[in-house]
Formats: sequence, structure tokens, C-alpha cells
Amino acid sequence: MAQVDMAVPVQERLLAAASSLFAERGFAPTSVQEIVELAGVTKGAMYHYYSSKDDLLQQIYTRLLNLQSERLDAVVARDVSVDLRLSDAAADVVVTTLEHLDDAMVSWRSMHMLPPDRLAQVRADRRRYHERFRALIEQGQSEGVFRGDVSADLVTHQFFGGVHHLGSWYRVDGELTPVAIGAAFAELLLRGLQPS
Amino acid sequence: MAQVDMAVPVQERLLAAASSLFAERGFAPTSVQEIVELAGVTKGAMYHYYSSKDDLLQQIYTRLLNLQSERLDAVVARDVSVDLRLSDAAADVVVTTLEHLDDAMVSWRSMHMLPPDRLAQVRADRRRYHERFRALIEQGQSEGVFRGDVSADLVTHQFFGGVHHLGSWYRVDGELTPVAIGAAFAELLLRGLQPS
Repeated sequence: MAQVDMAVPVQERLLAAASSLFAERGFAPTSVQEIVELAGVTKGAMYHYYSSKDDLLQQIYTRLLNLQSERLDAVVARDVSVDLRLSDAAADVVVTTLEHLDDAMVSWRSMHMLPPDRLAQVRADRRRYHERFRALIEQGQSEGVFRGDVSADLVTHQFFGGVHHLGSWYRVDGELTPVAIGAAFAELLLRGLQPS
Repeated sequence: MAQVDMAVPVQERLLAAASSLFAERGFAPTSVQEIVELAGVTKGAMYHYYSSKDDLLQQIYTRLLNLQSERLDAVVARDVSVDLRLSDAAADVVVTTLEHLDDAMVSWRSMHMLPPDRLAQVRADRRRYHERFRALIEQGQSEGVFRGDVSADLVTHQFFGGVHHLGSWYRVDGELTPVAIGAAFAELLLRGLQPS
């Protein structure tokens, strides 16, 4: 049963309520009325912050992507070798995804239902993140730290496929912690890129 | 614009029409009426073969999974080393997924909308496939061909995440062919499993 923390500000609470309901019942069947009820606010309050249910879905994804982008910035800026930076970036995106799994699942599952303009915006944001991650692989390839006989784009897509799929098998009460899964994903990625 | 080949038998044509419409417009918004119109058959003919729209979606996925399972059987039965068998199995599932990308995308995207009994069936079928693929990794680990310090289950999920994600970036007119993508995915997987 969906629940939200009434102590957080209204704007955040609406996103939490929407994310929780979209995750539980799906995006299409959830009404704005149900979202405002769960968040404990009026429709008027909601429309002060968000223009529509589509807007809520877009903001759920944007909030997660912004968090992951800021963390990627911090990793990229570190003064260590590119393989360490890629490893940290890979582990980090796994951990943050697992820490915000409802938001991630809802976004990936329902994004295609957004109207074309919002979908284009979301895709452009995601592409920028993807390109910055890929650039780490390309840098390693140009430095000879990673093998150059594989497409950096393909490797990035393969890796993020694994990230997007986390929600289908991760269990909060399972044996593997988010940090352990992040470390294992990073190691698979780095080994896959090792020169022969 | 969705199109189907009128030369194929009615039963197959209905699956093709349904897959094409689900891929283009989504599962929920597509009506049985639209499916039978595209397939060029009556509703009566459809209900002779399929009990509902849910049944069509389940059969689209089952057909693909059966194909992939048969091919996995053939690979597993080959009298070659486990790393070659895993490599072939990995490349093969990428190629067959790309060759039936509408079916795969529709299944993965809409499966969660199936009623509980059908969803349970589909998940059980998928789990069996997953377990047989994972068994190859476990065999390689027990033989010392693959490193044993990583969960075979995690590696399998990570790999299939990449497979499930193919539809989000693969382009029929892109630089990489299905066979090249299959080979690259297999190589990433095998390198990720190499002992130190």
C-alpha cells in the first residue's frame, strides 16, 4: 500500500505520492485525484507546482537524472586514472538507481506514454548523461587503458541495460546490498574493457 | 504504419498484427477490433485461436521464448568447452532478440499489465530460461574456466538487462549488425568472467 512521508515539503511529497502510485498501479490507471489524496494536498496546490500528471512523471525522472548527473560530475572531476573514474561512475549509478528504485522503474516503464515534446526532452537529458558516461570509456580507449576494438557506445548501452533491469530482480531483503551490486557491475564493466 | 503479411496462416498473422499494433500504440490502447482488421480476419476467427488480447500478448512472448529456448538447447548440447557454449548462447539470444524486436519490446514493456495468472506463467517460463543460461556460467565457475568471485545470478541479470535494452538503441540502418552486436555482447560477458 502506497504511503508518503507527510513531513517532506508539498512539492516533494507530490512526486513521492505519484511515484509510489505509478509503481504500484501503473501510470495510465492512476488519477490526479488519487495522487493529491495520497499526498494530502488539494488539487489546487498540486497545479501550483505541476501542470499535469505527465509533468509529475517527467519531474520524477528529471529529479533522479539530475542527482545522478551531479554525482557523475563529481566522479569525472576527480584527479585519478580513467579506469578508477569509470569504475566509480558505474558503481555509483547502480547504487543511486537502487536507492530510488520506484522512481527509476516508473520512469523507464512509462516514459513512452509521455507526449512527444516531454518525451523528446527526457530523451535529450538521458542522452547527455549517456554521452558523458561514454566519454569516460572513449578516454580510456584513447589512452590505451581500455581495449579499442569495441564500440564505446555499445558498451555504454549494454551497461545501462543492466542498470535499467535492476528492478526486475533486486530484492531489498536479498543477499546482495546495493553497494555489492554496484561493485560487481563496475568490475564486470572494467574487465570487459581490459586490453587483451 | 503497421502492416502484416497476408500470406502467413491466420494464427501467426493475428500474433503479427497484435505485436505490430502493440509496438506502435501500446498494449492498453489497442482494441481487438483493430487487431482483427489489420490481420484481415473476423473476431470469430480470432477467438477460435486466442481467448483475449491478454492471450495474444502472452503468446507473442511465449513464441519468442520458445524459439530462444530451443536454440539454447541446441547450444548447450554441443560437445565443446563451456566458454564456447556460453559465448554462442549469449550471441544467439542477442541476434534472435534483434530479429524479433517488436515481439521482444512489446513483451517486456507490457507484460506487467497481464492478469496475475498469466503473468505468473510468463515469469515462470522466463525464469526457467534464465536458470538454464545461468547454469552455463555456474558450470564454467565450477570448472575454474570462469572466475568464481561473482554471483552467476547477478551476471545473468546484468547480461539480460543489456539484451532487454537493445530496442532502445538498435537501429536497423545503424552501423552495427545483429551478428556484430551479438559477438560484442558475448565478448563483454566472457571477458567479465575471465579469472584474474
